[in-house]
Amino acid sequence: MRTYFKVRGDRAEEATGEVVREQPLTLYINGQRFLTLLCSPMKLEALIVGYLWMEKVIEGLADVQQVDVSPVDGRADVTLTRPVTLPTERILTSGCGGGITFRIDHRLFPRLSSRRRVRPEALAERMKDLFTAAVHYKASRGIHGAALAEPDGLLVVAEDVGRHNAVDKVKGEALLRGIPTEDRILLSTGRISSEMLLKAARMGVPIVASRTSPTEMAVALAEQLNVTVCGYVRPDGLNLYTGEGLLLTEPATARG
Amino acid sequence: MRTYFKVRGDRAEEATGEVVREQPLTLYINGQRFLTLLCSPMKLEALIVGYLWMEKVIEGLADVQQVDVSPVDGRADVTLTRPVTLPTERILTSGCGGGITFRIDHRLFPRLSSRRRVRPEALAERMKDLFTAAVHYKASRGIHGAALAEPDGLLVVAEDVGRHNAVDKVKGEALLRGIPTEDRILLSTGRISSEMLLKAARMGVPIVASRTSPTEMAVALAEQLNVTVCGYVRPDGLNLYTGEGLLLTEPATARG
Repeated sequence: MRTYFKVRGDRAEEATGEVVREQPLTLYINGQRFLTLLCSPMKLEALIVGYLWMEKVIEGLADVQQVDVSPVDGRADVTLTRPVTLPTERILTSGCGGGITFRIDHRLFPRLSSRRRVRPEALAERMKDLFTAAVHYKASRGIHGAALAEPDGLLVVAEDVGRHNAVDKVKGEALLRGIPTEDRILLSTGRISSEMLLKAARMGVPIVASRTSPTEMAVALAEQLNVTVCGYVRPDGLNLYTGEGLLLTEPATARG
Repeated sequence: MRTYFKVRGDRAEEATGEVVREQPLTLYINGQRFLTLLCSPMKLEALIVGYLWMEKVIEGLADVQQVDVSPVDGRADVTLTRPVTLPTERILTSGCGGGITFRIDHRLFPRLSSRRRVRPEALAERMKDLFTAAVHYKASRGIHGAALAEPDGLLVVAEDVGRHNAVDKVKGEALLRGIPTEDRILLSTGRISSEMLLKAARMGVPIVASRTSPTEMAVALAEQLNVTVCGYVRPDGLNLYTGEGLLLTEPATARG
């Protein structure tokens, strides 16, 4: 909580409210400094595990011997069960939160082949669930929520000041709880960037839905990887940018 | 422009609209590969110059001999007038767009001392100007705008899928056009993250205003660096998070 001033006209009134928190978290892998994430201080173990999985530093929980997180020091020490060579290629992404990927390259991703079909109303209901579950979003805005879902309910929800961090947390928590992500739905409160699309494909997720819009590159990648992309998901409708994952009485074939 | 489907109920109708564009741009400095930015393909020279300035790779235009941008190849070759050692420290930021900073560290920033005072109504009017000028934002949303302003008008406006890129473009264009940024106002359509706050301080900007909210860390840094932070700037008011840069008949002293 923080005290600030609400200014109306020439008057300033004191007010108190939650302001979005972000903190640096430096990862050490097997004692070697890897990088520093800026993130919201919730579900940090899930963030770390999910991030390392996304970057292919680990293939699963079996590779992780121990994760020691010290939020106060802004430091996390990860001990793996085997030595690793950490990726060094730097890509500055445009997306909220996250911002670096090291190895994500769409050529490294197999094209998905899923028969999953979802009704638009189910996506709208799950999006509503996500906004209900996103308690930090409601408290201070300026934070992003992401969820792994089945058509009839949410499985994992995570929030972060960084949109990509939120997705990494979703994957990390799914790993920690033993929940498969393949053939499921990924929901985001924010824009679908190319990096988020690649993260979804990496998770085996064939349907990505957002309350806002995808980027053009995300749509282009989705076409290549056979991922369905829906934007502006609302109770009365949505936009379908590409893919065949929607169940419609009048079928649409997005031609991109 | 892209064709997509508007789904309402069970019906899908074809629609055409602009979708936010992002593209990778790999920077080579004096022939050495530096990093890859994901950005919106507008004002790329300004982005490059601004980014290099923010990262202290250059001190000004005098250090830049040539910038060759090939948007089609996603490549930019920058020739400097002197050899440089490129920064390698990686920090993954939470902010939209941008996402890596290499050397930005608040201890490296001098505390600003500005007597600039602005009326809240002037900030609201300039914010309105920014939304008027942000043509890409209006076309497709999901894009961020930033502007350098005086109380009575905008000086530089830039847009990018990445919020930090937009600020780098503002600085870069200011450098290219010979416009000093010191003691001026920085406006953003999106959240003020710690990185954006540091970029503002680096530009000598004592007042940062956003249509949405700052993060807690941004406010804490602003207190240290004596930067005024205003959020939720609207015609009828705004929130003052810290600083003494507002001109009020009933003065407020933000105590943080």
